[in-house]
Amino acid sequence: MNPDSGTPHRTDALVIGAGPVGLFQVFQLGLLGLHAEVIDSLPAPGGQCTELYPDKPIYDIPALPLCTGRELAERLLQQVAPFQPRFHNGQQVTRLEAVEQADGTPAYRVDTDAGLRFTARTVFIAAGVGSFQPRHLTLEGAAAFEGQGLHYRRPEPNAWAGRDVLVMGDDDAALEAAIACAAAGPQRAASVTLMHRREAFRAAPETVAQMRALSEQGAMRFVAGQPVGLTGDAKGQLATVQVALPDGSTTALPAQLMLVLLGLSPKLGPIAEWGLALERKQLRVDTEKFETALPGVYAVGDINTYPGKRKLIVSGFHEATLAAYAAAARLSPDGRVLLQYTTTSPLLQQRLGVQPDKPAPAET
Amino acid sequence: MNPDSGTPHRTDALVIGAGPVGLFQVFQLGLLGLHAEVIDSLPAPGGQCTELYPDKPIYDIPALPLCTGRELAERLLQQVAPFQPRFHNGQQVTRLEAVEQADGTPAYRVDTDAGLRFTARTVFIAAGVGSFQPRHLTLEGAAAFEGQGLHYRRPEPNAWAGRDVLVMGDDDAALEAAIACAAAGPQRAASVTLMHRREAFRAAPETVAQMRALSEQGAMRFVAGQPVGLTGDAKGQLATVQVALPDGSTTALPAQLMLVLLGLSPKLGPIAEWGLALERKQLRVDTEKFETALPGVYAVGDINTYPGKRKLIVSGFHEATLAAYAAAARLSPDGRVLLQYTTTSPLLQQRLGVQPDKPAPAET
Repeated sequence: MNPDSGTPHRTDALVIGAGPVGLFQVFQLGLLGLHAEVIDSLPAPGGQCTELYPDKPIYDIPALPLCTGRELAERLLQQVAPFQPRFHNGQQVTRLEAVEQADGTPAYRVDTDAGLRFTARTVFIAAGVGSFQPRHLTLEGAAAFEGQGLHYRRPEPNAWAGRDVLVMGDDDAALEAAIACAAAGPQRAASVTLMHRREAFRAAPETVAQMRALSEQGAMRFVAGQPVGLTGDAKGQLATVQVALPDGSTTALPAQLMLVLLGLSPKLGPIAEWGLALERKQLRVDTEKFETALPGVYAVGDINTYPGKRKLIVSGFHEATLAAYAAAARLSPDGRVLLQYTTTSPLLQQRLGVQPDKPAPAET
Repeated sequence: MNPDSGTPHRTDALVIGAGPVGLFQVFQLGLLGLHAEVIDSLPAPGGQCTELYPDKPIYDIPALPLCTGRELAERLLQQVAPFQPRFHNGQQVTRLEAVEQADGTPAYRVDTDAGLRFTARTVFIAAGVGSFQPRHLTLEGAAAFEGQGLHYRRPEPNAWAGRDVLVMGDDDAALEAAIACAAAGPQRAASVTLMHRREAFRAAPETVAQMRALSEQGAMRFVAGQPVGLTGDAKGQLATVQVALPDGSTTALPAQLMLVLLGLSPKLGPIAEWGLALERKQLRVDTEKFETALPGVYAVGDINTYPGKRKLIVSGFHEATLAAYAAAARLSPDGRVLLQYTTTSPLLQQRLGVQPDKPAPAET
């Protein structure tokens, strides 16, 4: 039992997804005086920008002729800072359910797989293409070994100390894990095999060179092949992996620990089960409020669909803006929200924590 | 007759309004391979940003935690530079009319008051609150003197040389005009009177000091008052201005030249007569293409309206994006346009003139 499970966090707004659109959602909510809590499956905010293309250039963000994915996320984090959102990283929403609060007002109960519970007056699904999950083996029977020697995330060093380790993958994460297992020291593995279907890697040249040096020293080895079966011992722990080799033959590799590091793949996950209108894995919304079939639950960014929809960040920014106004109207006693401008409104400037009378320093 | 009037410019896209949304319209059209010509009533691109709040901070442009109006315009001009749009500044569109081209395809004829003519396959109205026009005197009979001694823009120096000049206004433009007329030299005015309803100015302190120094030297004078009547000579040229003074009395000032510099005020102007659906001075559009009642004519930014519309720059950026896709689909042989990303598409990167293989310099 998680100690948090009995004490739900109450919040005006819960944002699911900390990508660029989720972050701008937090900003627009903040301008309208609504505090947001943010949940994301990744270990840090930024979404695809920081996970998939941190160093790649983006050219079509308005008034930013060039920025990288990481820089875009950093700029948005700086922009939301005045509103002090609470980020709950590394967890996925497992449940979203309409509830009635003690005072009779409608709200949503939201649970995460890390045991957090929220009671949110409005919910914003900014989940992009879904939550990023490690790609799993599609091998029959593999699920039975999950956590019993088969891992999809790199474990702590004591998990590999003195064991025969098989690492599957071709990127930096895979090579770095194999190198760590083979490194001299008290927690060194008994043997380390790096496996990929062919001897070609997507990792940094230095990392590949380090792996090759360790192989020449005999501290690890590379095998070209693909797993075709897993065998356990009497206690159900992983013991052997059957591997198909390029010449068509099969061999058995001893492995008490198998690390499958095949990158991340987006999964819509439990969102599909929340009773929202889905259309080709997208949530259908209107273009006035960007509201889903559930009142007070909005969907913004790549996860929504409407006539004319284009999966572009610039559209997500607009959607988040109108969704914030819709939520503020929903929570306002008279159902109305005044449009104010950050350039002229003392209230917005107070919320932003800026002093309009002092000349603002130009951005450099 | 303007020599250009007989030779219409042919263009894929004509953008009316060079504010931030009009500029981003040019950018999105450029990404989709469509060249744009841009018309604006102001002397330079930038719209309200550079005209009304060049030095004021804006806080709600996504991923730009702080920028001034001028900086926003400069960033957008930098972003559109690869597409080499042609700017036609200082003129207003007077006519928009559907025509059929020689090959039978539909287009629009667009004329400006500077005598330019365009044949445009698509038109984007990004005119904000309308074109910025000098505020006029609301005095009865004033229109008859326009150009006959009464001016709403500062004329060339020979217009004031040796004449009695009355300058009306309290901002930098008004004070600077009065100072120019009073400056020693062959084109000096016979007399210069600066008039405002009270002795308080919105001009820069240095400008006010310069005006006061010239007044002390007897080169000009300030009169607190408001015009109540204009009288002409036998040829219909302005001769005398009747002025109501703060004490309730009226006086007559000789004035062969009257400069009325009361700032700019937005006017919807001829747009109201183009047969588009107007709703409280806004153009009604759909939210899929942001198209007006005329096919191939789109309205984006503050000038349009639809359910949920908020007059925010961030929304205009989205509207311009979907309008560009709609126009590209309209001009595409099969009516379809592929969504591509600037981060990964070699075609878009070629249009942007960037070389993806070389690491891009980080923005500083």
